[in-house]
Amino acid sequence: MKKITKLLVANRGEIALRVLRSAREMGLKTVAIYSEADRNALHVRYADEAVCVGPPASKDSYLRGDKIIEVCKQLGVDAIHPGYGFLSENAEFARMVTEAGITFVGPSPEAMNIMGDKLSAKQAVKAYDIPLVPGTDEAISDVEEAKRIATSVGFPILIKASAGGGGKGMRLVHSEGEFEEQMKLAVSEATSAFGDGSVFIEKFVTGPRHIEIQVLGDEHGNIVHLFERECSIQRRHQKVIEEAPSSVLTPELRAEMGRCAVDVARACNYTGAGTVEFLLDDKRNFYFLEMNTRLQVEHPVTECITGLDLVKEQIKVAQGLPLPFRQEDLGITGHALELRVYAEDPQNNFLPDIGKLQTYVRPQGPGVRVDDGFEQGMDIPIYYDPMIAKLVTYGKDRQEAIERMLRAIEEYQITGIETTLGFGRYVLTHPAFVSGDFDTNFIKDHFQPNVLQQQPSDELAKLAAVLAAKLLTEQKGAAAANGSVATGPVVPVSNWKKNRLAGR
Amino acid sequence: MKKITKLLVANRGEIALRVLRSAREMGLKTVAIYSEADRNALHVRYADEAVCVGPPASKDSYLRGDKIIEVCKQLGVDAIHPGYGFLSENAEFARMVTEAGITFVGPSPEAMNIMGDKLSAKQAVKAYDIPLVPGTDEAISDVEEAKRIATSVGFPILIKASAGGGGKGMRLVHSEGEFEEQMKLAVSEATSAFGDGSVFIEKFVTGPRHIEIQVLGDEHGNIVHLFERECSIQRRHQKVIEEAPSSVLTPELRAEMGRCAVDVARACNYTGAGTVEFLLDDKRNFYFLEMNTRLQVEHPVTECITGLDLVKEQIKVAQGLPLPFRQEDLGITGHALELRVYAEDPQNNFLPDIGKLQTYVRPQGPGVRVDDGFEQGMDIPIYYDPMIAKLVTYGKDRQEAIERMLRAIEEYQITGIETTLGFGRYVLTHPAFVSGDFDTNFIKDHFQPNVLQQQPSDELAKLAAVLAAKLLTEQKGAAAANGSVATGPVVPVSNWKKNRLAGR
Repeated sequence: MKKITKLLVANRGEIALRVLRSAREMGLKTVAIYSEADRNALHVRYADEAVCVGPPASKDSYLRGDKIIEVCKQLGVDAIHPGYGFLSENAEFARMVTEAGITFVGPSPEAMNIMGDKLSAKQAVKAYDIPLVPGTDEAISDVEEAKRIATSVGFPILIKASAGGGGKGMRLVHSEGEFEEQMKLAVSEATSAFGDGSVFIEKFVTGPRHIEIQVLGDEHGNIVHLFERECSIQRRHQKVIEEAPSSVLTPELRAEMGRCAVDVARACNYTGAGTVEFLLDDKRNFYFLEMNTRLQVEHPVTECITGLDLVKEQIKVAQGLPLPFRQEDLGITGHALELRVYAEDPQNNFLPDIGKLQTYVRPQGPGVRVDDGFEQGMDIPIYYDPMIAKLVTYGKDRQEAIERMLRAIEEYQITGIETTLGFGRYVLTHPAFVSGDFDTNFIKDHFQPNVLQQQPSDELAKLAAVLAAKLLTEQKGAAAANGSVATGPVVPVSNWKKNRLAGR
Repeated sequence: MKKITKLLVANRGEIALRVLRSAREMGLKTVAIYSEADRNALHVRYADEAVCVGPPASKDSYLRGDKIIEVCKQLGVDAIHPGYGFLSENAEFARMVTEAGITFVGPSPEAMNIMGDKLSAKQAVKAYDIPLVPGTDEAISDVEEAKRIATSVGFPILIKASAGGGGKGMRLVHSEGEFEEQMKLAVSEATSAFGDGSVFIEKFVTGPRHIEIQVLGDEHGNIVHLFERECSIQRRHQKVIEEAPSSVLTPELRAEMGRCAVDVARACNYTGAGTVEFLLDDKRNFYFLEMNTRLQVEHPVTECITGLDLVKEQIKVAQGLPLPFRQEDLGITGHALELRVYAEDPQNNFLPDIGKLQTYVRPQGPGVRVDDGFEQGMDIPIYYDPMIAKLVTYGKDRQEAIERMLRAIEEYQITGIETTLGFGRYVLTHPAFVSGDFDTNFIKDHFQPNVLQQQPSDELAKLAAVLAAKLLTEQKGAAAANGSVATGPVVPVSNWKKNRLAGR
């Protein structure tokens, strides 16, 4: 066993603090690193020791693997936790760490390399029966051949320029009849844009939901899955609300996707915590997308429903310990939601809104967890991801988790910058979300920037009768009650509440 | 169904805020009451409306049932939640509330009356097979008769003056041989102190542990238990650390005590949430003590291990809804601990230490819940119970709950007043507590006021190797690390940490 006694967290913000907390509970000594922009950050103050590794820009600090390894040698650090982002999926860094005699809390560099490339990942899982989005394996330019493949895949299909990106040269084709014309347009567009007219044919997944499976493997060949997270609520293709379990999976589908995820992990001899991402279509077919070889931002929802501390499990596995449970020991209890509270303006296309946290008071109480790295008065630095906090709620079922999240959003006091809190409330009171009938197009289908400034719509009013707009009712009640006097003065909406309403 | 739409919380502090949070999640309108001393309290700001009911002294404000009912009438309140303490076990108040057409969230006045008196409680449970502490049913003065009873009960026994109190006229008798002499002394002491020489004989429970069972009943005759809480760590006969489940109960004993608790509740047609208290002796015999006909301070540990929100269950039952589960649907997941953070000086016999919260920063992160009613800068008022907060941790097992509690105690920043945080750390790192081998005499047996100022003892050092003194090791490590420089300056123990260490 490679006993870990002193752990360096090669990251910043909420994930650094979150890893440090688990390390402290395990009795490990802890070391933080920081850039010059993060001198006063909470993770710096929380660790037993902290070392500045360079100027604000990530490439000069948090991405300087060489410096980080140097710090480890000087301070007698025997393990590095990379968090997510930064160096967490850098196989070369993992290799350097291991060669320096330090334990890397994560998978092997080999596993990272295999899953880091879409083609090698597909190659690796071929031995297993893993469903992939149907289409061409290789680029193609012959129209007749392409049409034959498109027909066998079944319409609608996507034509994608093989040299393309950003949607350029991409065509959605609904039926065989329009295929030839669209293919010709795609090829000519691709030729003029990239100088390469070859294309891929891929099935167009309708009503796609993003479902991912958490896996955990040890060095003794044991791999389990910790069920799914649904992350279909995205803006700019990035997750903003996640939940576990998904409202749409049956026990059978869950077991099947879980088995596939374990097979994907097995295909690269995976160790540690990883996530296998799938697309689920509106007919409950699922397709393997990719594997993330690190801890995910949204791991807390899995912790809530399984009762496990994923960071501790990562550290134990990295020490060479076998997993302390088998698949049949694991189960789901309750329901959890995560809202990423970003310093972004939902009214302005979710553009970052950087500044000072003039007021910052976290929600408290049963079933609420806040993972963050900020305090009142701190600035959100411009150099990094503008996430302020992850607001996580847990309840006995989905309805209670939603009600708690709405209550927690009400309690959260943030002024000085725009945040995604109001957007979160919008989603969590929207009938499509409440009923579970949504997909990755939620924002496109249901959200207009000005909607947060409007009075509650009819749609919302209807929902009020069912579940979530309770909150709105309540606010009106408070406003209406001003002036009614009993045996003492009625205190109207308090400053706290005023702040809260003004803050969004 | 008596639909509740607007709830008044007839209480203050953390429990008022905690009830308001659940009410808000349920979509109810909320009303707070407050005394002149609590004008700026959090519960006042949290509720939709708040009404001052009088001067600081409880008897002039929080105990003024008449005023509170008047407030309800004026504001259209249809239900009152009494919290714990104050009017929560006042049958006369409950009757007045009901007669005013308002729903009282709690049991019937009849059930309160039966369980509010020890003699009537014993009488009520007689029809059931509930073990009571063996001894005389009635006062006795004949020495021979008393000796016969003492022998049949089995030594050691207690002789208690029937008119007594505060230990006066109480004698512990270890064997038959010394009985006559002790009885005569007790009778003469009782005669001279109270003018009444009659006494009770009661079995002396050795190694007593305080185990209580949470019960929940509806208006349709359904009663379930939600397992036990152990509350053996007490100072001045008052609980300070509670946990669920108990480290000493077997599944069989748990089921047996649970059945007894349900029978006690059935004996008074109990509705709502209540707690049946037992003493458990060192041979695992248990004896019914009393029933508390309200929500307990320590209810969060039960919420953690069952995933239920007890306040919501109370409110649903009060509306006449049937319980949504049967006994066989309920189970225990994980382990939870609660430390009551009092404004008290453990070094000075736990005397209240009232003042201003100069620094007040709550711990955060996985498995930590803080129920409180204060903010930084607030005063702890002298008029009420000096509890600042309930620090609750939850983990997959007892060890993790303890490790989290130690981590959370480290993170908690309170300056300006003495608190029980350091005492909590002492208990949670003590081998007797860690091993589960303790009883209600823990403080008498293991705690001397000056112990918190000492260096870790040998006893603690030994424990460090096992589990909990990890924390101490860590602190030493941080201190030793000052001066070691890597590629940037090492940040020594931060201000945050300095505050923390100075604050205890």
